[in-house]
Amino acid sequence: MLLEALPYIRRFHGQTMVIKLGGEVMEKKKTLDSLLQDVVLLHYVGMKPVLVHGGGPEITREMKKAGKEPEFVAGLRVTDRETIEILHKYLVGKLNTEIVLGINKHGGKAVGISGMDGKMILARKIREVTTPDGEKVQVDLGFVGEIERIDPHMVNFLLSNGYIPVLSPLGVDEEGRSLNLNADTVAAELAVVMGARKLIVLTNVKGILRDPKDEGSLISQLTVEESKSLLASGVVTGGMIPKLKACIRAVEGGVERAHVLQGTMPHALLLELLTDRGAGTMIEKGK
Amino acid sequence: MLLEALPYIRRFHGQTMVIKLGGEVMEKKKTLDSLLQDVVLLHYVGMKPVLVHGGGPEITREMKKAGKEPEFVAGLRVTDRETIEILHKYLVGKLNTEIVLGINKHGGKAVGISGMDGKMILARKIREVTTPDGEKVQVDLGFVGEIERIDPHMVNFLLSNGYIPVLSPLGVDEEGRSLNLNADTVAAELAVVMGARKLIVLTNVKGILRDPKDEGSLISQLTVEESKSLLASGVVTGGMIPKLKACIRAVEGGVERAHVLQGTMPHALLLELLTDRGAGTMIEKGK
Amino acid sequence: MLLEALPYIRRFHGQTMVIKLGGEVMEKKKTLDSLLQDVVLLHYVGMKPVLVHGGGPEITREMKKAGKEPEFVAGLRVTDRETIEILHKYLVGKLNTEIVLGINKHGGKAVGISGMDGKMILARKIREVTTPDGEKVQVDLGFVGEIERIDPHMVNFLLSNGYIPVLSPLGVDEEGRSLNLNADTVAAELAVVMGARKLIVLTNVKGILRDPKDEGSLISQLTVEESKSLLASGVVTGGMIPKLKACIRAVEGGVERAHVLQGTMPHALLLELLTDRGAGTMIEKGK
Amino acid sequence: MLLEALPYIRRFHGQTMVIKLGGEVMEKKKTLDSLLQDVVLLHYVGMKPVLVHGGGPEITREMKKAGKEPEFVAGLRVTDRETIEILHKYLVGKLNTEIVLGINKHGGKAVGISGMDGKMILARKIREVTTPDGEKVQVDLGFVGEIERIDPHMVNFLLSNGYIPVLSPLGVDEEGRSLNLNADTVAAELAVVMGARKLIVLTNVKGILRDPKDEGSLISQLTVEESKSLLASGVVTGGMIPKLKACIRAVEGGVERAHVLQGTMPHALLLELLTDRGAGTMIEKGK
Amino acid sequence: MLLEALPYIRRFHGQTMVIKLGGEVMEKKKTLDSLLQDVVLLHYVGMKPVLVHGGGPEITREMKKAGKEPEFVAGLRVTDRETIEILHKYLVGKLNTEIVLGINKHGGKAVGISGMDGKMILARKIREVTTPDGEKVQVDLGFVGEIERIDPHMVNFLLSNGYIPVLSPLGVDEEGRSLNLNADTVAAELAVVMGARKLIVLTNVKGILRDPKDEGSLISQLTVEESKSLLASGVVTGGMIPKLKACIRAVEGGVERAHVLQGTMPHALLLELLTDRGAGTMIEKGK
Amino acid sequence: MLLEALPYIRRFHGQTMVIKLGGEVMEKKKTLDSLLQDVVLLHYVGMKPVLVHGGGPEITREMKKAGKEPEFVAGLRVTDRETIEILHKYLVGKLNTEIVLGINKHGGKAVGISGMDGKMILARKIREVTTPDGEKVQVDLGFVGEIERIDPHMVNFLLSNGYIPVLSPLGVDEEGRSLNLNADTVAAELAVVMGARKLIVLTNVKGILRDPKDEGSLISQLTVEESKSLLASGVVTGGMIPKLKACIRAVEGGVERAHVLQGTMPHALLLELLTDRGAGTMIEKGK
Repeated sequence: MLLEALPYIRRFHGQTMVIKLGGEVMEKKKTLDSLLQDVVLLHYVGMKPVLVHGGGPEITREMKKAGKEPEFVAGLRVTDRETIEILHKYLVGKLNTEIVLGINKHGGKAVGISGMDGKMILARKIREVTTPDGEKVQVDLGFVGEIERIDPHMVNFLLSNGYIPVLSPLGVDEEGRSLNLNADTVAAELAVVMGARKLIVLTNVKGILRDPKDEGSLISQLTVEESKSLLASGVVTGGMIPKLKACIRAVEGGVERAHVLQGTMPHALLLELLTDRGAGTMIEKGK
Repeated sequence: MLLEALPYIRRFHGQTMVIKLGGEVMEKKKTLDSLLQDVVLLHYVGMKPVLVHGGGPEITREMKKAGKEPEFVAGLRVTDRETIEILHKYLVGKLNTEIVLGINKHGGKAVGISGMDGKMILARKIREVTTPDGEKVQVDLGFVGEIERIDPHMVNFLLSNGYIPVLSPLGVDEEGRSLNLNADTVAAELAVVMGARKLIVLTNVKGILRDPKDEGSLISQLTVEESKSLLASGVVTGGMIPKLKACIRAVEGGVERAHVLQGTMPHALLLELLTDRGAGTMIEKGK
Repeated sequence: MLLEALPYIRRFHGQTMVIKLGGEVMEKKKTLDSLLQDVVLLHYVGMKPVLVHGGGPEITREMKKAGKEPEFVAGLRVTDRETIEILHKYLVGKLNTEIVLGINKHGGKAVGISGMDGKMILARKIREVTTPDGEKVQVDLGFVGEIERIDPHMVNFLLSNGYIPVLSPLGVDEEGRSLNLNADTVAAELAVVMGARKLIVLTNVKGILRDPKDEGSLISQLTVEESKSLLASGVVTGGMIPKLKACIRAVEGGVERAHVLQGTMPHALLLELLTDRGAGTMIEKGK
Repeated sequence: MLLEALPYIRRFHGQTMVIKLGGEVMEKKKTLDSLLQDVVLLHYVGMKPVLVHGGGPEITREMKKAGKEPEFVAGLRVTDRETIEILHKYLVGKLNTEIVLGINKHGGKAVGISGMDGKMILARKIREVTTPDGEKVQVDLGFVGEIERIDPHMVNFLLSNGYIPVLSPLGVDEEGRSLNLNADTVAAELAVVMGARKLIVLTNVKGILRDPKDEGSLISQLTVEESKSLLASGVVTGGMIPKLKACIRAVEGGVERAHVLQGTMPHALLLELLTDRGAGTMIEKGK
Repeated sequence: MLLEALPYIRRFHGQTMVIKLGGEVMEKKKTLDSLLQDVVLLHYVGMKPVLVHGGGPEITREMKKAGKEPEFVAGLRVTDRETIEILHKYLVGKLNTEIVLGINKHGGKAVGISGMDGKMILARKIREVTTPDGEKVQVDLGFVGEIERIDPHMVNFLLSNGYIPVLSPLGVDEEGRSLNLNADTVAAELAVVMGARKLIVLTNVKGILRDPKDEGSLISQLTVEESKSLLASGVVTGGMIPKLKACIRAVEGGVERAHVLQGTMPHALLLELLTDRGAGTMIEKGK
Repeated sequence: MLLEALPYIRRFHGQTMVIKLGGEVMEKKKTLDSLLQDVVLLHYVGMKPVLVHGGGPEITREMKKAGKEPEFVAGLRVTDRETIEILHKYLVGKLNTEIVLGINKHGGKAVGISGMDGKMILARKIREVTTPDGEKVQVDLGFVGEIERIDPHMVNFLLSNGYIPVLSPLGVDEEGRSLNLNADTVAAELAVVMGARKLIVLTNVKGILRDPKDEGSLISQLTVEESKSLLASGVVTGGMIPKLKACIRAVEGGVERAHVLQGTMPHALLLELLTDRGAGTMIEKGK
């Protein structure tokens, strides 16, 4: 019943919620459609959702179609000139557009942007990565960037005019070239810059698991400190590493809570935001 | 010398200029780069350029790559589901991004949008076309639309905040589906809705020619009435028909002057806007 | 489920809803409390509720306590100096405050005002009434007024700053004296002046009945014309007459729909506004 | 002559003046009427008066009528549920309305509010008082509160839109219950929060007297330090204690000057504010 | 007493008052000083005075000093290049500055402007005048202009920011040359464009006299129609003709009332605006 | 060509440029006219020029005409009552007006003001000067002032509304009397208060020369420190001393760069601001 949701609607009224849509939750049309309907509902009950999307599976498919073998260094996709063009076409052109159309369909007014628009995300080429052993290594990943500065002006305008912003994770360097950015990082930094109330990372697993093979081992709550220990312990692996790091970054940057949720579960977003029953893993500052 | 340009800079100060970039002027990187530098200059000397781009040649190439034979009815590209996805990828993803990056490179701040963003261009499927003989024929062109209404709010925001808007010619219908729109028509309607001072259609020919085979037969000035006679006479052919129609529509809708210019000629835009030497064909109301 | 409500939340987003609370629905603390919780919910899902309250039963009780026999002429309470002081104390002082406190309790921010504040409702003494036979008769009802003009400035400020306005039905004349106004009329005129989407009259019966003794004879929908016939036919009687007249006035003044609902029924307001199942009687323009 | 007033009008132009009307100056209709006319004049010559009213004598009368014996602890009225309802009716309903009507009558536009409106004054129950010997004693005074925070937003809106705010001294706690507040304290805290130029406490004695029985012993000027000594010395007694404390609080909170004036003396307010002849006692910071 | 002024202060609150200072009232320093003090008072009690000044006697003296014999055609001063430079120096440089300094001295914040600033008053050379017999005659008066259009933007900014604008009667033509304008006409047109409540023409006679030699024959009230008859009858002569014409123009343009007052009489302005005792001649529309 | 200017237009877009016009560059009508055309161009390509003018030669001529021998103490003109009236007439009346008309003529919209307007420049009489030996000497220079505070409000309004402000170097003291100010100092302080990007001092020599008799000894660049040494060394003499001091003051106050340019050289302003070829002497902070 609606009245159960009232305390949550009240609490989150007018609050910015940065929601990261992992590429894996965008694979099935129906899942995505249901999720976007939920986003529209959040918008209409007074929250200010901002979407950041990924697109890994799609990009990997297209690279292979083009005869290119995806290569990753320290979790970052090596991005040559051809690959960045694939990002333009599939992130900005295809996936962002699909999200915009989905939101429009349910009665929201979405606006698709990327960090290139208005030079909103200024980035610089990554020239060094840290290995798991903490060693710094010089690398050339091609057109892969790290964020220098996000200008929130346009996103603020869009939110305050009733639009739902949908952001593709591409930035631009001082010379005006486009750079591939990690979507989790973009979502976290945007949440910090916007003074968001929450960062919500939607993926296809239940949350952070103590034992990756056992869904029953879901950790429902973590402090920043516990999260860091978990990362150091090696329990968290693969794509979950940047997700958890993004959550830590957001909370350390002033976001009240960060969540990792299973976006493919029906209405996970609504359950987490509008009912007493939480879902997934929640990260907060701790004492 | 700059002082020669002063009267023009003064006259067009704060005026909106809708500039249509034909797909054919975007084919060569260098041509496009020079053109976008000129656009940035116009912005900095106080005008408000709004760009609408086409992309015909690119789309045709991609359709063929995908094994589809482009088909046109009454000058409109038949657009099935696969083709509209190509439009998303190549218009919104590739070409719009290239323009945005080019403007950024020269120190402007461009923002790429399409008529789908914020449901800015509401359109409906075309179900009827008029044959050259004036006969109305029922057609099914797939996802091809005609404009119902343009909401200028976002473009106005962008202009008044110092951004240069770059618009891809796609709209959205009441149900939220994307529709393929003619870029010349989008530019003309946008010029009308924005109260633009000029509509400038950039293409790869010198302007409107009395004899399509003779570049020396350029008509430098036309009234709306003369333009209509010219259309009726059959002298104007092919892609120039929608361009001239767009110019007529703009001028009839209150735009002071519309121009057809050769965008591939170096600095044609600056010559036309900032010097005594005009270029191409200019259409105005006439007495 | 919330998603069922989405289309309604979307439709009424940002819309002003003038809600008249009859004195009879304020008699039981629990009923009022539940109703005000619903109002707070409407506020948080994006509507702009404005409350106008009555207080007949309370006033009558207090008059009797003070040894005064309530007297009505043409449905209007004869109001001498002592009675207007009772109105100040019980409408402005007691009932309005109770509503404000109830809304505050559920997390809204209510502001109690009356038409005297800032001379918001300018009124003049009633000197003439129309009898049921249509005859005009000179009367002296004491401090009873009819509305000349409502200045919506303060209510607009309150709404646009996130407050819920609660209005007591008192006005002020040119000399600055307070006048007793009919609450249904105040609600209707306010709805017109505010460009409200709906006027909702909450009372203790199910709606307008074809047979006042048979609750099963509820009329769920009426056009303005039908409403007028109904009034002329004499089927509508007692306190329902001014309510139906108020609905007619609102709809004729541009309000899309007016409703008579049973405010004592749990969540009647939510059922009417947020679900497919309507309640009570709805009056609209008709073709 | 008006020109004598010019330097004062100039000095106080646009300045907020918080004026406390003691219940005792509201007892005679004519006195109140003349005082409100002066307030309207101050408004029209460019000051921004904000009124806070008391109502002690009226409340005491009504309690007795209801068969309740008023009881005071440390100068605070013990307030049970019945008494708080009397406050709603007589402060918010009767007295505030009388002031609003009086100001309206002289051409001002007053708006009556209380600290409950929009949760403007957040308060908490008093559970401890300090005895004259400085001892802290646990008490239960019922619904009596102390101020936690005043939100000046609504008063600022009213002032900047040309209204004269009239405030009843009631607050609201976190749970939304109304609490009885000391009007002198409310006036002082409001003056601080508004950055008022002056706090003016209107009462029925000439000011602060060195000998309470001798009106000739009026102290016309006091520093904060002198005021505190005076309080400690026991010379100041009864209702003058909270008045002087309020003045001290205001001046320590940044208000330039606080005044205790005899509101029942004709035009005391104008004499103090617009001529060289001061009246009553003025408290300022001192070196 | 101030309270006598209250109804007038209330009525004229926030109202624009265009006040024309004739050159003749600026001759004696003390008279001017007292008058400007009154203007400052009007400002501080809430009116919005706008001053337009003349300077005839000063200009005539300076022309004679420069060896030039002043010549008038149809009441207009023939203005050659040397004379217009005298106007710049003595109107804009000397007299306007004196007024600005006088207002500043009394605590106002005056800003001196002329119709040349920001091309505020666009004018064109007068090439034709109408003789008393109604005949149109071609003339060359040199740099003498008639008003085409007044842009009130700057005066509005000044008023709404608490400044008192002081305007010298010079305009500018399309080519940017300065033109001598009649100050009475400028005041009247400005009053119309600003939607002023009053136009007040200050001169050195008591008002409009039925017999110019008899001060006792003052006409205290005139309708526009009566004013026109009076002009036609030839009773009004000399410098009073353009003054009365200006009053007629203002009232016909929507100004409620126009006044001709003796500015050299102490506090004539205050007497007229703030007391029951009017002064001089008042022109209003009439039924 | 315009494109050469693009990087400069971009860099200085929206930047305030305070330009001091020495009296010596205003002597020839044609020079002044060309200079003002350049100022209008700077305005139209997006800069915000603010003009401060001097008038030494004109004032000296007029003083002599009036039989007064100009006297200077420490570079400051002794200013008696008669002289200050000459300043009103010739600075405010004649020269400021000429600049305003010149800008208007070329299509700009200039507004002439002085530091007396709105008490914009508050000053106090100079009572002490420092001799070249660093000794402080009591003096009475008459109405000569030093700046206490500049209120940039009006200049900001003018700039943000598209006007070009033209300021005469006169201030006003607390009592409202006008004071003669050094125009170089006014320009420097204004540049600091406005957060200007540049201060540009236009005079009739090429810049700062190492050998005043050798134009070939022009110093094209100086740090603040070098400038101070130069002043101490006695190489800089006469009117160049206050100019260089003004440049130092501006740069120390946060202005990025100050320039001394030969305003009588055709288009020196444009060459300096819009091309790679600088002109004159540029002073900046240095490391």
